Amino acid sequence: MGPAATAEFLRRLIEATPAGRDQDHLHVLVDNDPSVPDRTAALLGEGPDPTPYLLTMARRLAAAGAQLLVMPCNTASAFATRLADEISVPLLRWDAAVAAGLTRRRPGIARLGLLATSGTLASGVYQQVLARVGVELVVPDAAAQERVMALIRARKGGVPGRQLLTDLHDAAVDLRSAGAQEVLLACTELSDIAQGSGPGWLDAMDLVVERLLLVADAWAASDGRPPFSTAPGLLTGE
Amino acid sequence: MGPAATAEFLRRLIEATPAGRDQDHLHVLVDNDPSVPDRTAALLGEGPDPTPYLLTMARRLAAAGAQLLVMPCNTASAFATRLADEISVPLLRWDAAVAAGLTRRRPGIARLGLLATSGTLASGVYQQVLARVGVELVVPDAAAQERVMALIRARKGGVPGRQLLTDLHDAAVDLRSAGAQEVLLACTELSDIAQGSGPGWLDAMDLVVERLLLVADAWAASDGRPPFSTAPGLLTGE
Repeated sequence: MGPAATAEFLRRLIEATPAGRDQDHLHVLVDNDPSVPDRTAALLGEGPDPTPYLLTMARRLAAAGAQLLVMPCNTASAFATRLADEISVPLLRWDAAVAAGLTRRRPGIARLGLLATSGTLASGVYQQVLARVGVELVVPDAAAQERVMALIRARKGGVPGRQLLTDLHDAAVDLRSAGAQEVLLACTELSDIAQGSGPGWLDAMDLVVERLLLVADAWAASDGRPPFSTAPGLLTGE
Repeated sequence: MGPAATAEFLRRLIEATPAGRDQDHLHVLVDNDPSVPDRTAALLGEGPDPTPYLLTMARRLAAAGAQLLVMPCNTASAFATRLADEISVPLLRWDAAVAAGLTRRRPGIARLGLLATSGTLASGVYQQVLARVGVELVVPDAAAQERVMALIRARKGGVPGRQLLTDLHDAAVDLRSAGAQEVLLACTELSDIAQGSGPGWLDAMDLVVERLLLVADAWAASDGRPPFSTAPGLLTGE
């Protein structure tokens, strides 16, 4: 979510899979439903709750045979707990997978810049999951956050990512100037603009893809049994 | 099919959709099952029949609510008729959609170079569908076709498309030298390497995306009723 970000997530998952031929890849089912109400609008109290839509998608995928779910949307992490309670298939929790990947890639980091939707910031998901590993967040001020949202809306509106790259770099540089030791791109549209981690930032989508492949590996190594004790519920990917 | 080509098809469909926000896009369900047996091997009599796998995927998508199916694989067109007979949802036929797009983009073309898998060539799907519109095919000789297959296998094996672009250009130039007025990239892996139509070639994937959006538009304009008389069966996209 949105559509382009989902396609980008699928592309990166395939690129990151060590495979020599088609048959070495994971079997992936995608439900790319663009009618899911805007997650940020809901979290700011300005739009309908997307949870029923997310539940329908999760159940549709589970009915089609999916054994593990992931929502390629940082903002949707705010709805993950309610979702996990209602579904019969484990959900790899995006924000927790990012936190796990961050501490592996940047051990000891204390101050992380966060570029995300206003909904993600308002929900506090990253504040909570990163406080647990001793990481404090540096976020844009109100005017800069408006510019971040404009970038996200432009990408959703079909503006090619490469035209938005300079503005994204500027936003990351601002957070470094404000004391961030690293900047996390924690919105899948920003990941799509950035096309991966680089010198200026860590891309949350890369961290989740990495984590998902680790879970799949562990699954395969356990003779096809899920590599976690309780089947349904939230997976942190640790 | 393969996995990277499916992701690329999804990306192009989204990029080509005139949309200002998430909610303007098509609802797309993807079944990216990499275990489908190799289509070329089957058509050359060297591997198992993929039809049962394709049927399972088609039924899974129909059960999940899909109203129109498309297989992002040129080679799989050879199995489309048998598939369409068994499923309850119409299938947009890839090869016919390409033929329709070709005659719109290159009216009056008489000789078309074809870069495709050896399975597609052996199946005769493009020979048949293009003969109907008066187009004769120019295909690589045996040695050159081996080089085309090597490109396809390299992309499936994870070699980045940009590293294969020069060899693909060489193959297209050879077909022009042999009398082709235009060259069609009729394998989704080659489409993924090319990243779209350009001065050297027409990309079959672009033509199908275009056709699919036309069908979706017609569908939307007909108050949600399918824009064709018989629900199941093969759609040529005309």
